[in-house]
Amino acid sequence: MTAAAGEVATRPAGRPRSPEVDEAISDAVIDELAEHGWDGLTVEGVAARAGVGKATIYRRHPSKIDLLIAAAERLVEQSELPPDTGSLDGDVRALGRSYVRMMTRSRLGPLVPATIAATVRSPELARVQRRFMAQQLTGLSQVIARAVDRGELNRDADVDLFVEMLLGTLFYRIFVSKRPVDDRAVDALADRLLTAFT
Amino acid sequence: MTAAAGEVATRPAGRPRSPEVDEAISDAVIDELAEHGWDGLTVEGVAARAGVGKATIYRRHPSKIDLLIAAAERLVEQSELPPDTGSLDGDVRALGRSYVRMMTRSRLGPLVPATIAATVRSPELARVQRRFMAQQLTGLSQVIARAVDRGELNRDADVDLFVEMLLGTLFYRIFVSKRPVDDRAVDALADRLLTAFT
Repeated sequence: MTAAAGEVATRPAGRPRSPEVDEAISDAVIDELAEHGWDGLTVEGVAARAGVGKATIYRRHPSKIDLLIAAAERLVEQSELPPDTGSLDGDVRALGRSYVRMMTRSRLGPLVPATIAATVRSPELARVQRRFMAQQLTGLSQVIARAVDRGELNRDADVDLFVEMLLGTLFYRIFVSKRPVDDRAVDALADRLLTAFT
Repeated sequence: MTAAAGEVATRPAGRPRSPEVDEAISDAVIDELAEHGWDGLTVEGVAARAGVGKATIYRRHPSKIDLLIAAAERLVEQSELPPDTGSLDGDVRALGRSYVRMMTRSRLGPLVPATIAATVRSPELARVQRRFMAQQLTGLSQVIARAVDRGELNRDADVDLFVEMLLGTLFYRIFVSKRPVDDRAVDALADRLLTAFT
């Protein structure tokens, strides 16, 4: 903490926070996670990558969990739902493809299983994950609400189960059975889901 | 390796393997995994718990992966499929309940996400997992074959997708959305699956 104390002395208290620094830190957290995983995430690594002092990070994020929360929120801000296709069928296929792309093509996809595993041992991390998922579900619920409005889905359909069957099956196929997931595979799943729920 | 060399000297080569020692080692691997996870699994820990010398372990299992393979095979031997209920509906509910019990009540359940995460980084571990899953699927395929024989399921039904939708949804619900999974939840999933596939 010597370095941190030194840096605090050179920066007057009350100096306004720069959003650029916040973004640089969150991006650095995501990059460090992609490279070293949760266990290998260190404030030193994030500081070096973001080009800021450790004190700058400690001041904003007292713990590693706080760092992760900020990064997760930035990810949610950046993530976009696929556009309205006009039908539940089209929306579910688009959502499935977007999930598969995220899991298999982004730097963060391979981290998802490790993050899930970490939440089993860390109640704090489990809370972050719940918050992250709640935000995701808010997005997905728009898709469902549109389907209800169009009369494609019953108003009392079990939306949580629908989402778990869609994302759970894709997660399991990608990371557990490790079978290839192309567009046809997503379509086959969407067909079954729509048969099951409509 | 001093201890190992010493032990080798006291045991003549060619001495027949004792199945009891094999079982003690595999059980110790499972216990150590449950307590310390994959990263914390050490030959020292397994040797101490099994009450054998490290050389005894190295002789049978040259690497940590070999230890895991042996333990996984023992788990498969021990695991039993639920008995034939006489209908696909009953079998799927029984399978679902049995999976939920294993994931939420056994010492090994909480390890499953960490094991899946570890396979992302280790191709060797991924091979073990594939072997383990192939054995599981052989069991599940009996359930499916009976359903086809009874005319409950088409001969060309996508069995892999069926299994992924069943186990994937349960996995996701337990470890990702972390919603409670009681018998009613398993039943609701079984209902949707049967609607989707029959």
